[in-house]
Amino acid sequence: MNSDELYRQIKKKRSFLCVGLDSDPALFPQLLKNVQYPIFEFNKAIIAATAKYAIAYKPNLAFYEAEGNEGLHQLEMTVEFLRKNYPEIFIIADAKRSDIGNTAQRYARAFFEKMNFDAVTLAPYMGYDSVKPFLEYKDKWAVILALTSNKSAVDFELANMENGEPLYKRVIEEAMKWGNADNVMFVVGATRPEKLAEIRQYCPDNFFLVPGVGAQGGSVDEVAKYGLNRKCGLIVNSSRGIIFADNSERYAVKAGEKAAELASQMAKYI
Amino acid sequence: MNSDELYRQIKKKRSFLCVGLDSDPALFPQLLKNVQYPIFEFNKAIIAATAKYAIAYKPNLAFYEAEGNEGLHQLEMTVEFLRKNYPEIFIIADAKRSDIGNTAQRYARAFFEKMNFDAVTLAPYMGYDSVKPFLEYKDKWAVILALTSNKSAVDFELANMENGEPLYKRVIEEAMKWGNADNVMFVVGATRPEKLAEIRQYCPDNFFLVPGVGAQGGSVDEVAKYGLNRKCGLIVNSSRGIIFADNSERYAVKAGEKAAELASQMAKYI
Repeated sequence: MNSDELYRQIKKKRSFLCVGLDSDPALFPQLLKNVQYPIFEFNKAIIAATAKYAIAYKPNLAFYEAEGNEGLHQLEMTVEFLRKNYPEIFIIADAKRSDIGNTAQRYARAFFEKMNFDAVTLAPYMGYDSVKPFLEYKDKWAVILALTSNKSAVDFELANMENGEPLYKRVIEEAMKWGNADNVMFVVGATRPEKLAEIRQYCPDNFFLVPGVGAQGGSVDEVAKYGLNRKCGLIVNSSRGIIFADNSERYAVKAGEKAAELASQMAKYI
Repeated sequence: MNSDELYRQIKKKRSFLCVGLDSDPALFPQLLKNVQYPIFEFNKAIIAATAKYAIAYKPNLAFYEAEGNEGLHQLEMTVEFLRKNYPEIFIIADAKRSDIGNTAQRYARAFFEKMNFDAVTLAPYMGYDSVKPFLEYKDKWAVILALTSNKSAVDFELANMENGEPLYKRVIEEAMKWGNADNVMFVVGATRPEKLAEIRQYCPDNFFLVPGVGAQGGSVDEVAKYGLNRKCGLIVNSSRGIIFADNSERYAVKAGEKAAELASQMAKYI
Protein backbone atom coordinates (compact mmCIF):
# COMPACT_ATOMS: atom_id res chain seq x y z
CA MET A 1 0.00 0.00 0.00
CA ASN A 2 1.37 3.44 -0.85
CA SER A 3 0.71 6.73 0.91
CA ASP A 4 -2.06 7.77 -1.50
CA GLU A 5 -4.00 4.58 -0.84
CA LEU A 6 -3.54 5.05 2.86
CA TYR A 7 -4.71 8.66 2.65
CA ARG A 8 -7.74 7.60 0.61
CA GLN A 9 -8.82 5.28 3.40
CA ILE A 10 -8.24 8.01 5.99
CA LYS A 11 -10.49 10.39 4.05
CA LYS A 12 -13.16 7.75 3.55
CA LYS A 13 -13.32 6.81 7.23
CA ARG A 14 -12.47 10.30 8.49
CA SER A 15 -10.15 8.63 10.93
CA PHE A 16 -6.45 8.02 11.36
CA LEU A 17 -6.88 5.51 14.14
CA CYS A 18 -4.73 2.41 14.52
CA VAL A 19 -5.89 -0.27 16.95
CA GLY A 20 -3.01 -1.95 18.74
CA LEU A 21 -3.65 -5.67 19.05
CA ASP A 22 -1.58 -6.19 22.20
CA SER A 23 -3.74 -9.22 22.76
CA ASP A 24 -2.59 -10.59 26.09
CA PRO A 25 -4.61 -13.71 27.01
CA ALA A 26 -4.14 -13.00 30.73
CA LEU A 27 -6.46 -10.00 30.28
CA PHE A 28 -9.13 -11.74 28.20
CA PRO A 29 -12.73 -12.00 29.37
CA GLN A 30 -13.78 -15.25 30.97
CA LEU A 31 -15.85 -16.45 28.00
CA LEU A 32 -12.65 -16.85 25.93
CA LYS A 33 -10.88 -19.05 28.46
CA ASN A 34 -11.91 -22.36 26.94
CA VAL A 35 -12.04 -21.76 23.19
CA GLN A 36 -9.48 -23.34 20.87
CA TYR A 37 -8.01 -20.09 19.51
CA PRO A 38 -8.65 -17.46 22.18
CA ILE A 39 -6.30 -14.83 20.72
CA PHE A 40 -7.77 -15.16 17.26
CA GLU A 41 -11.34 -15.11 18.58
CA PHE A 42 -10.53 -12.03 20.63
CA ASN A 43 -8.89 -10.27 17.67
CA LYS A 44 -11.74 -11.15 15.32
CA ALA A 45 -14.32 -9.69 17.67
CA ILE A 46 -12.24 -6.55 18.28
CA ILE A 47 -11.67 -6.07 14.55
CA ALA A 48 -15.34 -6.58 13.65
CA ALA A 49 -16.33 -3.99 16.26
CA THR A 50 -13.68 -1.38 15.39
CA ALA A 51 -12.94 -1.70 11.63
CA LYS A 52 -15.41 1.06 10.77
CA TYR A 53 -13.35 3.51 12.80
CA ALA A 54 -9.82 2.24 12.22
CA ILE A 55 -7.55 2.49 9.21
CA ALA A 56 -4.82 0.27 10.64
CA TYR A 57 -4.17 -2.56 13.07
CA LYS A 58 -0.90 -3.11 14.85
CA PRO A 59 -0.29 -6.45 16.56
CA ASN A 60 2.71 -6.28 18.87
CA LEU A 61 4.73 -9.41 18.28
CA ALA A 62 5.74 -9.83 21.91
CA PHE A 63 2.26 -10.85 22.97
CA TYR A 64 2.13 -13.55 20.31
CA GLU A 65 5.68 -14.83 20.82
CA ALA A 66 5.01 -15.10 24.55
CA GLU A 67 2.43 -17.78 23.71
CA GLY A 68 4.89 -19.76 21.59
CA ASN A 69 3.87 -21.40 18.33
CA GLU A 70 0.21 -21.25 19.27
CA GLY A 71 0.45 -17.49 19.59
CA LEU A 72 2.24 -17.04 16.28
CA HIS A 73 -0.22 -19.27 14.51
CA GLN A 74 -3.04 -17.06 15.77
CA LEU A 75 -1.16 -13.97 14.60
CA GLU A 76 -1.04 -15.47 11.11
CA MET A 77 -4.75 -16.26 11.34
CA THR A 78 -5.42 -12.65 12.36
CA VAL A 79 -3.50 -11.18 9.43
CA GLU A 80 -5.27 -13.54 7.02
CA PHE A 81 -8.63 -12.59 8.51
CA LEU A 82 -7.87 -8.90 8.04
CA ARG A 83 -6.63 -9.36 4.47
CA LYS A 84 -9.67 -11.36 3.49
CA ASN A 85 -12.38 -9.29 5.14
CA TYR A 86 -10.87 -5.80 5.26
CA PRO A 87 -8.49 -5.57 2.29
CA GLU A 88 -8.18 -1.78 2.63
CA ILE A 89 -6.76 -1.98 6.17
CA PHE A 90 -3.07 -1.17 6.77
CA ILE A 91 -1.39 -3.81 8.93
CA ILE A 92 1.70 -3.02 10.98
CA ALA A 93 3.89 -5.64 12.64
CA ASP A 94 5.07 -3.94 15.81
CA ALA A 95 8.22 -5.99 16.01
CA LYS A 96 10.92 -3.34 16.60
CA ARG A 97 13.43 -5.56 14.87
CA SER A 98 17.03 -4.54 14.32
CA ASP A 99 19.45 -6.77 12.53
CA ILE A 100 21.66 -6.46 9.49
CA GLY A 101 22.35 -7.72 6.01
CA ASN A 102 21.11 -11.21 5.24
CA THR A 103 19.59 -11.46 8.71
CA ALA A 104 17.46 -8.35 8.28
CA GLN A 105 16.47 -9.73 4.90
CA ARG A 106 15.08 -12.82 6.62
CA TYR A 107 13.00 -10.67 8.96
CA ALA A 108 11.71 -8.74 5.96
CA ARG A 109 10.74 -12.02 4.35
CA ALA A 110 9.05 -13.22 7.54
CA PHE A 111 6.88 -10.13 7.83
CA PHE A 112 6.29 -9.20 4.19
CA GLU A 113 6.20 -12.63 2.52
CA LYS A 114 5.42 -15.35 5.08
CA MET A 115 2.93 -13.00 6.72
CA ASN A 116 1.40 -10.31 4.60
CA PHE A 117 2.11 -7.23 6.72
CA ASP A 118 2.27 -3.76 5.13
CA ALA A 119 4.82 -2.38 7.57
CA VAL A 120 7.27 -3.35 10.30
CA THR A 121 8.58 -1.22 13.15
CA LEU A 122 12.39 -1.13 13.34
CA ALA A 123 14.92 0.03 15.94
CA PRO A 124 17.57 2.17 14.21
CA TYR A 125 20.58 1.66 16.51
CA MET A 126 22.62 -0.39 13.98
CA GLY A 127 22.07 2.11 11.17
CA TYR A 128 21.20 1.87 7.50
CA ASP A 129 22.19 -1.81 7.14
CA SER A 130 19.35 -2.73 9.45
CA VAL A 131 16.67 -0.88 7.46
CA LYS A 132 17.73 -1.31 3.85
CA PRO A 133 16.35 -4.84 3.24
CA PHE A 134 12.88 -3.67 4.27
CA LEU A 135 12.96 -0.80 1.77
CA GLU A 136 13.54 -3.18 -1.11
CA TYR A 137 9.92 -4.33 -1.07
CA LYS A 138 7.55 -2.30 -3.19
CA ASP A 139 4.55 -0.85 -1.34
CA LYS A 140 5.89 -2.02 2.03
CA TRP A 141 7.06 0.25 4.83
CA ALA A 142 9.81 0.58 7.40
CA VAL A 143 8.47 2.30 10.50
CA ILE A 144 11.55 3.59 12.30
CA LEU A 145 11.67 4.36 16.01
CA ALA A 146 12.49 8.04 16.38
CA LEU A 147 11.16 9.48 19.63
CA THR A 148 9.24 6.89 21.62
CA SER A 149 6.62 7.59 24.28
CA ASN A 150 8.39 5.87 27.18
CA LYS A 151 10.15 7.53 30.08
CA SER A 152 13.58 6.11 29.20
CA ALA A 153 13.54 7.92 25.85
CA VAL A 154 15.72 10.37 27.79
CA ASP A 155 18.51 7.79 28.09
CA PHE A 156 19.58 7.96 24.44
CA GLU A 157 16.88 9.24 22.07
CA LEU A 158 16.75 12.65 23.72
CA ALA A 159 20.47 12.84 24.47
CA ASN A 160 22.29 15.53 22.55
CA MET A 161 24.83 14.79 19.86
CA GLU A 162 27.99 16.79 19.23
CA ASN A 163 26.05 19.39 17.19
CA GLY A 164 23.79 20.08 20.16
CA GLU A 165 20.85 18.27 18.57
CA PRO A 166 19.25 15.11 19.94
CA LEU A 167 19.87 11.59 18.67
CA TYR A 168 16.25 11.18 17.50
CA LYS A 169 16.76 14.12 15.13
CA ARG A 170 19.86 12.53 13.70
CA VAL A 171 17.96 9.27 13.22
CA ILE A 172 15.20 11.05 11.31
CA GLU A 173 17.62 13.05 9.17
CA GLU A 174 19.59 9.95 8.23
CA ALA A 175 16.52 7.81 7.59
CA MET A 176 15.04 10.45 5.30
CA LYS A 177 18.05 9.82 3.05
CA TRP A 178 17.45 6.05 3.08
CA GLY A 179 13.89 6.09 1.82
CA ASN A 180 11.01 8.39 1.03
CA ALA A 181 7.51 9.32 2.17
CA ASP A 182 6.17 6.19 0.48
CA ASN A 183 8.25 3.67 2.39
CA VAL A 184 9.53 5.29 5.59
CA MET A 185 7.42 6.29 8.60
CA PHE A 186 8.62 7.36 12.03
CA VAL A 187 7.41 6.44 15.48
CA VAL A 188 6.87 9.67 17.41
CA GLY A 189 5.19 9.40 20.81
CA ALA A 190 2.12 11.44 21.70
CA THR A 191 3.48 12.09 25.16
CA ARG A 192 5.71 14.96 23.98
CA PRO A 193 3.48 17.00 21.62
CA GLU A 194 5.90 19.94 21.43
CA LYS A 195 8.45 17.56 19.93
CA LEU A 196 5.91 16.43 17.37
CA ALA A 197 5.64 20.02 16.11
CA GLU A 198 9.40 20.32 15.92
CA ILE A 199 9.81 17.00 14.08
CA ARG A 200 7.03 17.88 11.62
CA GLN A 201 9.04 20.98 10.66
CA TYR A 202 12.04 19.09 9.36
CA CYS A 203 10.07 16.06 8.24
CA PRO A 204 7.07 17.50 6.40
CA ASP A 205 5.97 14.57 4.26
CA ASN A 206 6.44 11.31 6.13
CA PHE A 207 3.71 9.54 8.07
CA PHE A 208 4.18 9.36 11.83
CA LEU A 209 2.98 6.38 13.81
CA VAL A 210 1.97 7.93 17.11
CA PRO A 211 1.59 5.77 20.22
CA GLY A 212 0.81 7.12 23.65
CA VAL A 213 -2.72 8.44 23.20
CA GLY A 214 -5.11 7.32 25.93
CA ALA A 215 -3.56 5.14 28.65
CA GLN A 216 -0.22 6.97 28.36
CA GLY A 217 -1.74 10.46 28.51
CA GLY A 218 -1.44 11.93 24.98
CA SER A 219 -4.47 13.62 23.36
CA VAL A 220 -5.80 13.38 19.79
CA ASP A 221 -6.23 17.16 19.59
CA GLU A 222 -2.67 17.92 20.56
CA VAL A 223 -1.29 15.28 18.21
CA ALA A 224 -3.42 16.63 15.34
CA LYS A 225 -2.53 20.24 16.12
CA TYR A 226 1.20 19.58 15.92
CA GLY A 227 1.49 16.56 13.66
CA LEU A 228 -0.89 16.86 10.70
CA ASN A 229 0.45 17.45 7.22
CA ARG A 230 -1.27 17.93 3.86
CA LYS A 231 -2.00 14.21 3.47
CA CYS A 232 -2.88 13.72 7.14
CA GLY A 233 0.51 12.16 7.85
CA LEU A 234 -0.63 10.63 11.12
CA ILE A 235 -1.52 7.15 12.27
CA VAL A 236 -2.51 7.42 15.92
CA ASN A 237 -2.43 4.18 17.87
CA SER A 238 -4.39 3.12 20.91
CA SER A 239 -4.01 -0.39 22.30
CA ARG A 240 -5.15 -1.15 25.83
CA GLY A 241 -7.48 1.87 25.92
CA ILE A 242 -9.56 0.16 23.24
CA ILE A 243 -9.06 -3.57 23.42
CA PHE A 244 -9.12 -3.87 27.21
CA ALA A 245 -11.66 -1.12 27.92
CA ASP A 246 -13.94 -3.81 29.32
CA ASN A 247 -13.29 -7.40 30.31
CA SER A 248 -16.85 -8.69 30.46
CA GLU A 249 -18.59 -10.45 27.56
CA ARG A 250 -19.26 -6.93 26.24
CA TYR A 251 -15.55 -6.34 25.55
CA ALA A 252 -15.96 -5.99 21.79
CA VAL A 253 -18.93 -3.61 22.05
CA LYS A 254 -16.98 -1.45 24.46
CA ALA A 255 -13.91 -1.55 22.19
CA GLY A 256 -16.10 -0.35 19.33
CA GLU A 257 -17.37 2.52 21.47
CA LYS A 258 -13.86 3.56 22.46
CA ALA A 259 -12.67 3.40 18.84
CA ALA A 260 -15.71 5.44 17.71
CA GLU A 261 -14.92 8.03 20.37
CA LEU A 262 -11.33 8.45 19.20
CA ALA A 263 -12.39 8.48 15.53
CA SER A 264 -14.95 11.21 16.27
CA GLN A 265 -12.17 13.32 17.76
CA MET A 266 -10.23 12.78 14.53
CA ALA A 267 -13.04 13.45 12.02
CA LYS A 268 -12.85 17.22 12.28
CA TYR A 269 -9.23 17.21 11.13
CA ILE A 270 -9.88 15.33 7.87
CA MET B 1 23.84 -19.57 34.45
CA ASN B 2 26.08 -17.06 36.23
CA SER B 3 29.49 -15.80 35.14
CA ASP B 4 31.39 -18.26 37.34
CA GLU B 5 29.63 -21.23 35.76
CA LEU B 6 30.29 -19.80 32.33
CA TYR B 7 33.96 -19.28 33.17
CA ARG B 8 34.19 -22.83 34.52
CA GLN B 9 33.05 -24.20 31.18
CA ILE B 10 35.49 -21.93 29.34
CA LYS B 11 38.38 -23.25 31.44
CA LYS B 12 37.27 -26.86 31.01
CA LYS B 13 37.03 -26.62 27.21
CA ARG B 14 39.82 -24.06 26.85
CA SER B 15 37.58 -22.26 24.41
CA PHE B 16 35.36 -19.21 24.37
CA LEU B 17 33.73 -20.08 21.07
CA CYS B 18 30.08 -19.50 20.33
CA VAL B 19 28.61 -21.16 17.25
CA GLY B 20 26.01 -18.99 15.53
CA LEU B 21 23.12 -21.13 14.36
CA ASP B 22 22.09 -18.87 11.46
CA SER B 23 20.54 -21.96 9.96
CA ASP B 24 19.23 -20.84 6.60
CA PRO B 25 17.60 -23.78 4.78
CA ALA B 26 18.49 -22.24 1.39
CA LEU B 27 22.13 -23.03 2.18
CA PHE B 28 21.60 -26.58 3.46
CA PRO B 29 23.24 -29.58 1.79
CA GLN B 30 21.11 -31.57 -0.60
CA LEU B 31 20.66 -34.53 1.74
CA LEU B 32 18.53 -32.38 4.09
CA LYS B 33 16.08 -31.25 1.42
CA ASN B 34 13.51 -33.94 2.02
CA VAL B 35 13.60 -34.62 5.75
CA GLN B 36 10.72 -33.59 7.99
CA TYR B 37 12.67 -31.18 10.20
CA PRO B 38 15.61 -29.97 8.11
CA ILE B 39 16.61 -27.11 10.39
CA PHE B 40 16.54 -29.28 13.48
CA GLU B 41 18.46 -32.07 11.75
CA PHE B 42 21.04 -29.58 10.54
CA ASN B 43 21.40 -28.02 13.99
CA LYS B 44 21.68 -31.41 15.71
CA ALA B 45 24.48 -32.50 13.39
CA ILE B 46 26.30 -29.17 13.76
CA ILE B 47 25.97 -29.27 17.55
CA ALA B 48 27.14 -32.89 17.81
CA ALA B 49 30.21 -32.04 15.73
CA THR B 50 31.11 -28.78 17.49
CA ALA B 51 30.01 -29.08 21.14
CA LYS B 52 33.46 -30.21 22.27
CA TYR B 53 34.88 -26.89 21.09
CA ALA B 54 32.04 -24.49 21.83
CA ILE B 55 30.79 -23.08 25.10
CA ALA B 56 27.75 -21.35 23.60
CA TYR B 57 25.28 -21.51 20.73
CA LYS B 58 23.48 -18.52 19.33
CA PRO B 59 20.51 -19.08 17.02
CA ASN B 60 19.55 -15.90 15.23
CA LEU B 61 15.79 -15.65 15.39
CA ALA B 62 15.42 -14.16 11.91
CA PHE B 63 16.32 -17.43 10.20
CA TYR B 64 13.67 -19.30 12.18
CA GLU B 65 10.95 -16.66 11.88
CA ALA B 66 11.51 -16.54 8.12
CA GLU B 67 10.28 -20.15 8.02
CA GLY B 68 7.12 -19.35 9.95
CA ASN B 69 5.74 -21.67 12.61
CA GLU B 70 7.73 -24.58 11.25
CA GLY B 71 10.93 -22.64 11.82
CA LEU B 72 10.06 -21.60 15.34
CA HIS B 73 9.04 -25.10 16.25
CA GLN B 74 12.47 -26.32 15.12
CA LEU B 75 14.11 -23.57 17.18
CA GLU B 76 12.31 -24.89 20.26
CA MET B 77 13.41 -28.43 19.37
CA THR B 78 17.00 -27.20 19.06
CA VAL B 79 16.97 -25.51 22.47
CA GLU B 80 15.46 -28.62 24.06
CA PHE B 81 18.05 -30.81 22.38
CA LEU B 82 20.86 -28.63 23.73
CA ARG B 83 19.40 -28.51 27.25
CA LYS B 84 18.98 -32.26 27.37
CA ASN B 85 22.27 -33.35 25.86
CA TYR B 86 24.61 -30.47 26.69
CA PRO B 87 23.30 -28.94 29.92
CA GLU B 88 26.50 -26.92 30.47
CA ILE B 89 26.13 -25.01 27.18
CA PHE B 90 25.18 -21.31 27.27
CA ILE B 91 22.34 -20.54 24.82
CA ILE B 92 21.85 -17.05 23.43
CA ALA B 93 18.74 -15.93 21.54
CA ASP B 94 20.09 -13.48 18.99
CA ALA B 95 16.83 -11.59 18.77
CA LYS B 96 17.94 -7.94 19.14
CA ARG B 97 14.58 -7.11 20.66
CA SER B 98 13.70 -3.63 21.87
CA ASP B 99 10.38 -2.91 23.43
CA ILE B 100 9.21 -1.51 26.72
CA GLY B 101 7.31 -2.22 29.91
CA ASN B 102 4.75 -4.99 29.74
CA THR B 103 5.71 -5.70 26.12
CA ALA B 104 9.38 -6.27 26.95
CA GLN B 105 8.20 -8.46 29.79
CA ARG B 106 6.39 -10.67 27.26
CA TYR B 107 9.56 -11.03 25.20
CA ALA B 108 11.46 -11.94 28.35
CA ARG B 109 8.85 -14.58 29.08
CA ALA B 110 9.02 -15.90 25.52
CA PHE B 111 12.79 -16.37 25.61
CA PHE B 112 13.39 -17.26 29.26
CA GLU B 113 10.24 -19.22 30.13
CA LYS B 114 8.56 -20.52 26.95
CA MET B 115 12.00 -21.31 25.55
CA ASN B 116 14.80 -21.90 28.00
CA PHE B 117 17.44 -19.47 26.69
CA ASP B 118 20.17 -18.14 29.00
CA ALA B 119 20.47 -14.79 27.27
CA VAL B 120 18.83 -12.49 24.75
CA THR B 121 20.44 -9.79 22.61
CA LEU B 122 18.74 -6.39 22.95
CA ALA B 123 18.88 -3.12 21.02
CA PRO B 124 19.26 -0.25 23.50
CA TYR B 125 17.69 2.64 21.55
CA MET B 126 14.60 2.97 23.80
CA GLY B 127 16.68 3.00 27.00
CA TYR B 128 16.41 1.33 30.39
CA ASP B 129 12.69 0.48 30.07
CA SER B 130 13.53 -1.90 27.27
CA VAL B 131 16.15 -3.85 29.24
CA LYS B 132 14.81 -3.89 32.80
CA PRO B 133 12.32 -6.76 32.42
CA PHE B 134 15.10 -9.06 31.23
CA LEU B 135 17.23 -8.26 34.29
CA GLU B 136 14.52 -9.42 36.64
CA TYR B 137 15.22 -13.07 35.86
CA LYS B 138 17.84 -14.72 38.07
CA ASP B 139 20.77 -16.28 36.19
CA LYS B 140 19.56 -14.89 32.85
CA TRP B 141 21.35 -12.28 30.79
CA ALA B 142 20.67 -9.18 28.73
CA VAL B 143 23.22 -8.91 25.92
CA ILE B 144 23.11 -5.28 24.87
CA LEU B 145 24.21 -4.05 21.45
CA ALA B 146 27.06 -1.61 22.02
CA LEU B 147 29.36 -1.42 19.00
CA THR B 148 28.28 -3.81 16.27
CA SER B 149 30.48 -5.21 13.50
CA ASN B 150 28.52 -3.80 10.55
CA LYS B 151 29.51 -0.89 8.35
CA SER B 152 26.53 1.26 9.33
CA ALA B 153 27.70 1.30 12.94
CA VAL B 154 29.06 4.70 11.90
CA ASP B 155 25.51 6.05 11.41
CA PHE B 156 24.68 6.26 15.11
CA GLU B 157 26.77 3.97 17.33
CA LEU B 158 30.03 5.72 16.46
CA ALA B 159 28.52 9.21 16.26
CA ASN B 160 29.75 11.55 18.96
CA MET B 161 27.55 12.87 21.72
CA GLU B 162 27.71 16.35 23.19
CA ASN B 163 30.62 15.37 25.46
CA GLY B 164 32.69 14.34 22.44
CA GLU B 165 32.30 10.64 23.20
CA PRO B 166 30.48 8.16 20.97
CA LEU B 167 26.96 6.86 21.53
CA TYR B 168 28.16 3.29 22.09
CA LYS B 169 30.17 4.51 25.08
CA ARG B 170 27.13 6.20 26.54
CA VAL B 171 25.13 3.00 26.05
CA ILE B 172 27.74 0.98 27.92
CA GLU B 173 28.06 3.49 30.74
CA GLU B 174 24.30 3.65 31.23
CA ALA B 175 23.82 -0.11 30.98
CA MET B 176 26.51 -0.74 33.60
CA LYS B 177 24.24 1.13 36.02
CA TRP B 178 21.24 -1.05 35.09
CA GLY B 179 22.80 -4.41 35.84
CA ASN B 180 26.07 -6.08 36.75
CA ALA B 181 28.68 -8.46 35.37
CA ASP B 182 26.38 -11.38 36.16
CA ASN B 183 23.45 -10.25 34.04
CA VAL B 184 24.67 -7.74 31.46
CA MET B 185 26.94 -8.48 28.49
CA PHE B 186 27.75 -6.23 25.56
CA VAL B 187 27.96 -6.93 21.86
CA VAL B 188 31.28 -5.56 20.63
CA GLY B 189 32.28 -6.41 17.07
CA ALA B 190 35.64 -7.99 16.24
CA THR B 191 36.00 -5.76 13.21
CA ARG B 192 37.28 -2.81 15.28
CA PRO B 193 39.82 -4.38 17.69
CA GLU B 194 41.20 -1.02 18.84
CA LYS B 195 37.73 -0.15 20.11
CA LEU B 196 37.62 -3.43 22.00
CA ALA B 197 40.70 -2.35 23.96
CA GLU B 198 39.16 1.02 24.72
CA ILE B 199 35.84 -0.50 25.83
CA ARG B 200 37.61 -3.07 28.03
CA GLN B 201 39.21 -0.16 29.91
CA TYR B 202 35.97 1.33 31.12
CA CYS B 203 34.14 -1.95 31.29
CA PRO B 204 36.57 -4.32 32.99
CA ASP B 205 34.27 -7.05 34.29
CA ASN B 206 31.45 -7.67 31.83
CA PHE B 207 31.45 -10.40 29.24
CA PHE B 208 31.57 -9.25 25.60
CA LEU B 209 29.79 -11.18 22.89
CA VAL B 210 32.04 -10.67 19.89
CA PRO B 211 30.74 -11.28 16.37
CA GLY B 212 32.74 -10.60 13.24
CA VAL B 213 35.51 -13.21 13.49
CA GLY B 214 36.01 -15.17 10.28
CA ALA B 215 33.73 -14.18 7.40
CA GLN B 216 33.70 -10.54 8.52
CA GLY B 217 37.48 -10.31 8.92
CA GLY B 218 38.17 -10.16 12.69
CA SER B 219 40.85 -12.40 14.22
CA VAL B 220 40.82 -14.43 17.46
CA ASP B 221 44.29 -13.20 18.40
CA GLU B 222 43.38 -9.55 18.12
CA VAL B 223 40.14 -10.02 19.99
CA ALA B 224 41.94 -11.91 22.76
CA LYS B 225 44.76 -9.37 22.93
CA TYR B 226 42.40 -6.46 23.46
CA GLY B 227 39.33 -8.02 25.03
CA LEU B 228 40.34 -10.62 27.64
CA ASN B 229 39.76 -9.94 31.33
CA ARG B 230 40.56 -11.94 34.47
CA LYS B 231 37.61 -14.31 33.94
CA CYS B 232 38.08 -14.49 30.16
CA GLY B 233 35.20 -12.07 29.58
CA LEU B 234 34.85 -13.05 25.93
CA ILE B 235 32.39 -15.11 23.94
CA VAL B 236 33.55 -15.05 20.34
CA ASN B 237 30.96 -15.98 17.76
CA SER B 238 31.36 -17.50 14.34
CA SER B 239 28.31 -18.41 12.28
CA ARG B 240 28.63 -18.97 8.54
CA GLY B 241 32.38 -19.64 8.82
CA ILE B 242 31.54 -22.81 10.77
CA ILE B 243 28.06 -23.98 9.84
CA PHE B 244 28.33 -23.32 6.11
CA ALA B 245 32.03 -24.18 5.69
CA ASP B 246 30.94 -27.03 3.44
CA ASN B 247 27.64 -27.84 1.80
CA SER B 248 28.21 -31.47 0.91
CA GLU B 249 27.13 -34.36 3.12
CA ARG B 250 30.36 -33.71 5.07
CA TYR B 251 29.02 -30.37 6.35
CA ALA B 252 29.02 -31.40 10.00
CA VAL B 253 32.52 -32.89 9.87
CA LYS B 254 33.80 -29.72 8.26
CA ALA B 255 31.98 -27.57 10.83
CA GLY B 256 33.67 -29.59 13.57
CA GLU B 257 37.05 -28.95 11.96
CA LYS B 258 36.43 -25.22 11.69
CA ALA B 259 35.26 -25.05 15.31
CA ALA B 260 38.32 -27.03 16.44
CA GLU B 261 40.55 -24.63 14.53
CA LEU B 262 39.07 -21.57 16.23
CA ALA B 263 39.12 -23.28 19.64
CA SER B 264 42.80 -24.14 19.18
CA GLN B 265 43.51 -20.46 18.57
CA MET B 266 41.70 -19.71 21.82
CA ALA B 267 43.27 -22.41 24.01
CA LYS B 268 46.52 -20.52 24.61
CA TYR B 269 44.65 -17.63 26.21
CA ILE B 270 42.89 -19.72 28.88
